[in-house]
Amino acid sequence: MGEGQDALLITHLPDLRYLSGFTGSSGVLVLHRGKGTLYTDGRYTEQAKAEAIGTNVVIISKGVLSAACEATAAASVTRCGFDAANTTVAALDAMRKAVPGKLRRSFFAPSGPVSAALREVKDDGEIEIMRRAALVGCGLFDRMLEYIRSGLTETQVAAELEHAARLAGAEAMSFETIVASGERSSLPHGRASAAKLPKRGFLTLDFGVVVEGYCSDMTRTVHLGKATPEEFDVYHAVLEAQQAAVAAIAPGVKVGDVDEAARSVLRNAKLDQYFTHSTGHGVGLEIHESPRIAAEQKQELKRGMVITVEPGVYIPGKFGVRIEDMVLVTAAGGEVLTPSVKAWTQL
Amino acid sequence: MGEGQDALLITHLPDLRYLSGFTGSSGVLVLHRGKGTLYTDGRYTEQAKAEAIGTNVVIISKGVLSAACEATAAASVTRCGFDAANTTVAALDAMRKAVPGKLRRSFFAPSGPVSAALREVKDDGEIEIMRRAALVGCGLFDRMLEYIRSGLTETQVAAELEHAARLAGAEAMSFETIVASGERSSLPHGRASAAKLPKRGFLTLDFGVVVEGYCSDMTRTVHLGKATPEEFDVYHAVLEAQQAAVAAIAPGVKVGDVDEAARSVLRNAKLDQYFTHSTGHGVGLEIHESPRIAAEQKQELKRGMVITVEPGVYIPGKFGVRIEDMVLVTAAGGEVLTPSVKAWTQL
Repeated sequence: MGEGQDALLITHLPDLRYLSGFTGSSGVLVLHRGKGTLYTDGRYTEQAKAEAIGTNVVIISKGVLSAACEATAAASVTRCGFDAANTTVAALDAMRKAVPGKLRRSFFAPSGPVSAALREVKDDGEIEIMRRAALVGCGLFDRMLEYIRSGLTETQVAAELEHAARLAGAEAMSFETIVASGERSSLPHGRASAAKLPKRGFLTLDFGVVVEGYCSDMTRTVHLGKATPEEFDVYHAVLEAQQAAVAAIAPGVKVGDVDEAARSVLRNAKLDQYFTHSTGHGVGLEIHESPRIAAEQKQELKRGMVITVEPGVYIPGKFGVRIEDMVLVTAAGGEVLTPSVKAWTQL
Repeated sequence: MGEGQDALLITHLPDLRYLSGFTGSSGVLVLHRGKGTLYTDGRYTEQAKAEAIGTNVVIISKGVLSAACEATAAASVTRCGFDAANTTVAALDAMRKAVPGKLRRSFFAPSGPVSAALREVKDDGEIEIMRRAALVGCGLFDRMLEYIRSGLTETQVAAELEHAARLAGAEAMSFETIVASGERSSLPHGRASAAKLPKRGFLTLDFGVVVEGYCSDMTRTVHLGKATPEEFDVYHAVLEAQQAAVAAIAPGVKVGDVDEAARSVLRNAKLDQYFTHSTGHGVGLEIHESPRIAAEQKQELKRGMVITVEPGVYIPGKFGVRIEDMVLVTAAGGEVLTPSVKAWTQL
């Protein structure tokens, strides 16, 4: 909680899940005097009681957020923290309207990113789940290597990958599967399309699965048919950049230095103008979490963080290459959780 | 735009797509003097120019939102509308910091839900896409009727359904597929689990596909094996409620009256205490859009709206039934876009 705050309102669902165990799609958690109260609606009566162990569950028939604010104000709270990064201007307005007029101006105050900071560092149980999620992803990539051939559509590849993911125990995909082939590999976020895999050219697969609520995330780029020397060189520059960034990872290292480790390799190869995004991001209950691994960022890595390392080079109208691992920050450095082959792969 | 506003800032991605055609995952659109300017980052240089026809595209290397606000304030705008329902308190703070100090207090003002209101009513092109999306969904349900048998896990059913969806042209699922069997059918939002389909009991499938960005949404509940008289009666009460709500749909009808048409049938059957959610919602570029079809809501239906009608009865620890169609509001009444069989289906 922020200074002078005696309660905390949690509305962002991944935070709510992290703090209470509740996995429903609608709810508000209030922390006050060391106790949590979860407000949700009638769809979740059974589920909330089963999941939110040790938390008081209150079922609200209409206006869960307003009811939670009203009850909190009535519980002799004087100032309640809220998450400004995940509360809309309209929601704050509704929250204020739910408390008595004399409290309206002073009652709610930004708490700072309470849960995001907690969630950055994964505990042993979370790491165990994330290892499994990452390995499910690796297994899918191995299957795809057997399946991929020119003439298939990108959509067929995505269908096969997602089907295998379900059968391997994934609850869902972490995000819309990216299958970008040939010239489309120059689109960093090329969702699977009706385009057919070419006889010759790159194929980028960027995908992740959700296991027990936790996301995996990995990217591999393979080549179909004979490559040009330029394609071969760009691939190896990206691979070198990716490995340099992984090697830079250790507790206490600034995230900007991890970004720079990748970026400087591409700068030396005169490819940095084609590396148009940041190097990576935290991953966990959400696919994009704190920290951002971006240029000049000063935040320091901590043991237990799980981040992605995913430099890429995208040459408009020609091709693109991205290679991405999930990496756990350990006392010894960066441990790659997605050990699938990254060496040049020609199919 | 709101009163006194000479520019409008759009950050909510479905609105941005609706107004500009851009489908990327990061961008800000500013409307000013009848012209649109799309600010996005280097990942989307190619895509933005290809998709946002007639819109000025500006690529920003760092801080897209701040850059858009700064440029807007520099373009002799005096007051800029923003969407309070889709702007976080933290984002508004950052927006204010990006404009000159003397403008800070007055520059941004809530615009009201500009795009949401526009998006409620679908034009002919949108309706054509949504018809196709809905029929893809119906095709999947028909396939599932052949596939489903007791002993399969819920996850296997979801895997098969989602694989077939991809091959039928879906870009993605509209939401996490719900496959809830036996006692789990009493969870209104039971995501597919490792539970096996029972020899006897209900199976609820609630799923949707995304086609050209537009979502479909439908639910069917079928029965495996011999049913009890109670199961049979509850199913028919829900079916009657669903059909009554569909029959109540017409331009000018209040959405609360559509809800009441379903709810009153269940009240007469003494089942209304188990109908723990609202009757439906608008659907389009997002799976949940305006209007909400809920008790006592006064909003009137208009021609071209596409809404869901999905009453359900959930008896804790026993079973649940939900039946859902997508319905287009036409001059003549409600046209069901998801014509799959709703009659009692025993497998």
